Amino acid sequence: MSAYHPLNETEAIEIARTMKNVFPAGAELNCREIGDGNLNLVFHISDSVSGSSIIMKQALPYAKVVGESWPLTLDRARIESEALIQEGKLAPGLVPNVYSYDPSLALTIMEDLSDHVIMRRGLIEGGRYPLFAGHISTFLAQSLFFTSDLGMNQQDKKIRLRDFINPELCKITEDLIFDHPYTDADTNSFDEAIRDEAEALWSDGALQLEVALLREKFLTHAQALLHGDLHTGSIFITPESTKVIDPEFAYFGPMGFDIGAIIANLLTSFASRIHWDADEPAREAFRAYLLSTIAEIWTQFEAKFRALWDQHGVDRLASAAPGYKDDYLRRLLQDTIGYTGCKMIRRIVGLAHVAEIDSIPDTAARERAQRLTLAIGKSLIKLNRNAQSIHQLIDTVKTTTASAKK
Amino acid sequence: MSAYHPLNETEAIEIARTMKNVFPAGAELNCREIGDGNLNLVFHISDSVSGSSIIMKQALPYAKVVGESWPLTLDRARIESEALIQEGKLAPGLVPNVYSYDPSLALTIMEDLSDHVIMRRGLIEGGRYPLFAGHISTFLAQSLFFTSDLGMNQQDKKIRLRDFINPELCKITEDLIFDHPYTDADTNSFDEAIRDEAEALWSDGALQLEVALLREKFLTHAQALLHGDLHTGSIFITPESTKVIDPEFAYFGPMGFDIGAIIANLLTSFASRIHWDADEPAREAFRAYLLSTIAEIWTQFEAKFRALWDQHGVDRLASAAPGYKDDYLRRLLQDTIGYTGCKMIRRIVGLAHVAEIDSIPDTAARERAQRLTLAIGKSLIKLNRNAQSIHQLIDTVKTTTASAKK
Repeated sequence: MSAYHPLNETEAIEIARTMKNVFPAGAELNCREIGDGNLNLVFHISDSVSGSSIIMKQALPYAKVVGESWPLTLDRARIESEALIQEGKLAPGLVPNVYSYDPSLALTIMEDLSDHVIMRRGLIEGGRYPLFAGHISTFLAQSLFFTSDLGMNQQDKKIRLRDFINPELCKITEDLIFDHPYTDADTNSFDEAIRDEAEALWSDGALQLEVALLREKFLTHAQALLHGDLHTGSIFITPESTKVIDPEFAYFGPMGFDIGAIIANLLTSFASRIHWDADEPAREAFRAYLLSTIAEIWTQFEAKFRALWDQHGVDRLASAAPGYKDDYLRRLLQDTIGYTGCKMIRRIVGLAHVAEIDSIPDTAARERAQRLTLAIGKSLIKLNRNAQSIHQLIDTVKTTTASAKK
Repeated sequence: MSAYHPLNETEAIEIARTMKNVFPAGAELNCREIGDGNLNLVFHISDSVSGSSIIMKQALPYAKVVGESWPLTLDRARIESEALIQEGKLAPGLVPNVYSYDPSLALTIMEDLSDHVIMRRGLIEGGRYPLFAGHISTFLAQSLFFTSDLGMNQQDKKIRLRDFINPELCKITEDLIFDHPYTDADTNSFDEAIRDEAEALWSDGALQLEVALLREKFLTHAQALLHGDLHTGSIFITPESTKVIDPEFAYFGPMGFDIGAIIANLLTSFASRIHWDADEPAREAFRAYLLSTIAEIWTQFEAKFRALWDQHGVDRLASAAPGYKDDYLRRLLQDTIGYTGCKMIRRIVGLAHVAEIDSIPDTAARERAQRLTLAIGKSLIKLNRNAQSIHQLIDTVKTTTASAKK
């Protein structure tokens, strides 16, 4: 690691110039640093002659969130590039291509996706992505099934698990999602107007029991290689294309955590529409689109996962035991619903918020969106172990939203 | 590993002679190889002048079981010595002291326990060990709690888990305990007289579902650092002393697997008394001793585990969430009961049997012991997810035994 130093734009261009298969001789390379500077440098390098372009992502040895800074391993760049390569093999076309990875600089060079938008931003702007449910359900089914004991050689999986031990990034999740929102922690951040909601979380024993059980699974249940941070800010999208990015939180954990992350961020979008759609019919139409997308994601995921199991299952007893497959998928749905709730709550009272809610300019509307997000999150967490069908999640969202209006 | 070769007795003595802190100058060293030659060489080296002695255990690069031979990693010697050292720190006095470990020879030098007997043999001979429940419950509570996310720094645990990835040894368990007994596998081995029992296992769907769920936990539930093979053949014992040996199957798995291993092997002893106690009062007295030992092990384990949690718990939410502790221990009991059943069944129809049953000379008595073991094992597996108390295990054993007599 002694060669490590944060690159400047000139150095980034020098490295890019060595990539003869992307940039021909005579390329006129331009470089812009487009990262937010909190965790990584991100260089966009393009050739004004050929039009070719790449992204160079370099991990920084620290994390900055809301002004605080703490050291963070550069090994996450290795984990991210290895996870991207693995996901690219299992779900071709649904992640950026990785051209190279240099461990000494913690530097990954990959496909430029500037023609895509970040899905969180796209949704704020009212974008609809009719292929998304199909794409993401394929990504989830392929990446989760084939890294689990159901679809991967079970001894190879143990070796792979060793490569993805990721203590520092897991700790961020363990603290910020599965602990701090449920106590008066310094890292918490919420509008003073909803202090009553935060304090209610700190004293809700039934909720805390469910969160403790979900936390336990996050800590111990090495079910499959997760993306680990699969929110709508980790997805580049167009109406035709979906690209999952930034798997630096990858580790072997409970599958429902990835599926729940997607659903949770569609539901923060759902709750945020209080402001973003001025008229109620437009709001209800967009919300209906989001709910049908959520139902589609689960339904398609389940169908694809079952088909993979039928065709590629490697565990004799898991395939032979009557009722096991149904039991497995029921538990996976329950985990998904529980993690969905956890990931909604942390976005309102925890350290890291979401733009679709935080950027609502109208104070009263923002507060209503925050309260609705919390109400849905709590209802889903309390539902989780009793759920039998994705329709119960949809019904819970609708019922909670209807109650919130009164 | 290039220096590796199986030692002969002369070489073993040469190595022992370098241990100046054990053997003084002028020691007259004698060496006997006392292993069974299936997995390891075991040299007993003693000084006829001072009376000092040691054990040198060297892993062989293959496993031999019932005439078959397959290659096996020498890395298991590292895992065994590291696990012994870890257990010795957490449960002082309950494992042999490790003097040294040489990775190039896959050689561990440790305390000689020749004044102890193997517990399986001791039980066959009718030995009673009044301190055993206290000792083993301490060993279990200390070694499991302090390597779990409840009692160990949760980031350090992930690093430690990486050190104990143990694919080859885990595969032996996955195949021989959690798969083969439930299908017509080549490795299975059973007396032809009980073929009906074996075939019943191969078609019992409700049983297979439970075993599939327990298998899944063995594959995915990285709860604590297990011994991994904690049967009565892995315990050296006297009425005053208990020493757990041979943790080469150590890995991070479900705690109930270790506790269930102990109970299962006390129950194979229970079932075997059909022969070993000629008169019924003696048999019933010994069986009552075994059942009270089992109840004591769980009861003391639970009390010690709860006390450690109260005093040394590191997980804020796990300690704060109302009902979580009770839920955790209830699930742990349920796992224990399930794994107890799995470990009984494999000893009758699987590859590796137990001496207390296989060595019953009377054919009819042996068959009755085998059928009783299977009946108890199946009942416990079917009980597991419904169990609320260790008394349900004891009652199930008694009821099943009473039915078997009819």
